[in-house]
Amino acid sequence: MPVNLSGKDRTRLNVFYRDLQKQVSTFAGYPVTAGFDYRELFRFLCYPLNNVGDPFAPCLYHMHTREFECEVLEWFAELTHAPEGDWWGYVTNGGTEGNLYGLYLARELYPEGMVYFSQDTHYSVSKNLRLLRMPHIMIRSLPSGEIDYEDLHETLRIHRDVSPIIFANIGTTMREGVDDVNRIQSILKNLAIPESYIHTDAALSGMTLPFIEGAPQFDFSTGIQSLSISGHKFIGSPMPCGVVLALKQNVDRIARSIEYVGTLDTTITGSRNAITPLMLWYAIRSHGVEGFRETVNECLKRAEYAVDRLNDMGVDAWRNPHAITVVFPKPTPVILDKWQLAVQGDFAHIMVMPHVTREKIDQLAVDIVSNPS
Amino acid sequence: MPVNLSGKDRTRLNVFYRDLQKQVSTFAGYPVTAGFDYRELFRFLCYPLNNVGDPFAPCLYHMHTREFECEVLEWFAELTHAPEGDWWGYVTNGGTEGNLYGLYLARELYPEGMVYFSQDTHYSVSKNLRLLRMPHIMIRSLPSGEIDYEDLHETLRIHRDVSPIIFANIGTTMREGVDDVNRIQSILKNLAIPESYIHTDAALSGMTLPFIEGAPQFDFSTGIQSLSISGHKFIGSPMPCGVVLALKQNVDRIARSIEYVGTLDTTITGSRNAITPLMLWYAIRSHGVEGFRETVNECLKRAEYAVDRLNDMGVDAWRNPHAITVVFPKPTPVILDKWQLAVQGDFAHIMVMPHVTREKIDQLAVDIVSNPS
Repeated sequence: MPVNLSGKDRTRLNVFYRDLQKQVSTFAGYPVTAGFDYRELFRFLCYPLNNVGDPFAPCLYHMHTREFECEVLEWFAELTHAPEGDWWGYVTNGGTEGNLYGLYLARELYPEGMVYFSQDTHYSVSKNLRLLRMPHIMIRSLPSGEIDYEDLHETLRIHRDVSPIIFANIGTTMREGVDDVNRIQSILKNLAIPESYIHTDAALSGMTLPFIEGAPQFDFSTGIQSLSISGHKFIGSPMPCGVVLALKQNVDRIARSIEYVGTLDTTITGSRNAITPLMLWYAIRSHGVEGFRETVNECLKRAEYAVDRLNDMGVDAWRNPHAITVVFPKPTPVILDKWQLAVQGDFAHIMVMPHVTREKIDQLAVDIVSNPS
Repeated sequence: MPVNLSGKDRTRLNVFYRDLQKQVSTFAGYPVTAGFDYRELFRFLCYPLNNVGDPFAPCLYHMHTREFECEVLEWFAELTHAPEGDWWGYVTNGGTEGNLYGLYLARELYPEGMVYFSQDTHYSVSKNLRLLRMPHIMIRSLPSGEIDYEDLHETLRIHRDVSPIIFANIGTTMREGVDDVNRIQSILKNLAIPESYIHTDAALSGMTLPFIEGAPQFDFSTGIQSLSISGHKFIGSPMPCGVVLALKQNVDRIARSIEYVGTLDTTITGSRNAITPLMLWYAIRSHGVEGFRETVNECLKRAEYAVDRLNDMGVDAWRNPHAITVVFPKPTPVILDKWQLAVQGDFAHIMVMPHVTREKIDQLAVDIVSNPS
């Protein structure tokens, strides 16, 4: 079908494009980088690509990027110390799908299990739990955003009759608090709980902590069963995407053989985006572990700079250790709108992503101070 | 982060690109068109776009295409006779998500409801139902691929104590059979069932039937509660996408009930692809209702041509009325692989999508006849 867009519609697209260019210059409130360049891959968008079903299984549908997807998964598996030969995963449409998958897997293993998560957990998790019809208990949070270990211990203690499914945050949405997985494991051990499941939501920090010396452990080395990391956040992508990894022995229990596409359909959505795996592959091959290490540590330094700068100017800003999220009192609506800042209660944050330069931080600091609430 | 791809990786991409160009020339077995051109939109892929949450609600995240998404939804709402002022929807990651949403909505309205669907229903539906923990009964199919109305009637009759949730297929995956929604409504009425829910999965045919004179009704005019249509199938897109529409009064009821989450986050995934709504908008504005009408009717004529051609050559091919799916006995593995044909039991099909020309049909027919099984 030939393209036949009216001049008016074309103008609308151009206006929208110019608006985006403007908006991106003050884009500092979300854990999403604007610093990516996939122009070399645009030619692939001329084809109906689809990574239908299991990325590791053969498929009759030939227009796919599974080979690239598998390499992306292998890279993440290595990064997160997944046990060799006993992991499985796929590139998702974003963090929510990865978390939904992890919780679904947990439910299939422990159909009567009780889910525990902190009150700082992303709102999509309660939605997921409702969708999955899983009973759950919300645990208090500490001021850092971490789960309150005492509350968790106490709550687990009085529910020892059901298998616990712990949804741990590796970088909460607002304060980038990191639940201490080793400490959670100790609590479970201390209570002599024989069977449990831990899923870690490492949406943002799954791409920063592995590159920071002395950062807390959160991955398969701590004995977790599944994890989810976003692709559009630290790596960057024009559309949401992510990676979910899980122990293969668990996944095999929920797999179903599907004749129609000649593939094992183990993923939440059947037809799957095949461009995002290619983009993640491209980013990984371009930057490598060393490139990401450098970028992450530059962001950390700039986050420290942002805290100092805001403090110097009298703004009560702070950040968690190893965090690129800088938290400060909620500024006026004009500032919130201009810098697209996310808000919770009486505080806001900026995310010092790769594209948030010192100049932007300076501008934002000046804006906050010049617009007192 | 600057791009720094090795020569070897760049070569791999080039080889992959050439392979795609080759594969697309014999791509005839899936309900997915290869005839689209979104090059004009590629520049938008330089930004971290995200249509997070409800497309109709305001949002602090400014890098989005909600305005375009809403226009796409309005176009589909009009096409499917959604009641003015009482519909809601969003652009999904594909048919599975749309069906998941419809079933989720049905479950929230009828928590004890029983789901009925035919044995020709796409495999993802059983997966969805398992995810949603919804009880269900599979109904026999007729040779056309439609649901067996007598079996449905009988089964409903003996389960009159639970509200029925009917999952109707508007174009089954293998034979493009269309469940007669008016007949299903009559069965429900005849059994004096006071409350029920009908979701229609119009993945492919939702974009063909509205443009065919005398085609069966399947949309909101028949009294259904929700429907799902794919975007990457007939319209075409480099990644899976779709549209889900539902009665607003129902959506509001589940939105209210999830208010404790502290958000009106009514979509399945929170962060959402913002490029696909833009692509759908572009296609709709380029082709318009008249453009699609012309293309659909050309495909129908070519599907008829394919049946005649194969029959003339001694192949027992057939198609349903108004269908662009041509069904014939399963050919040899070489043919299946070359033409990427989907298979079920002892038959296969080709989908006469916009890019499947008469020349391709002739080639395929010759290939089948020259490789007898």
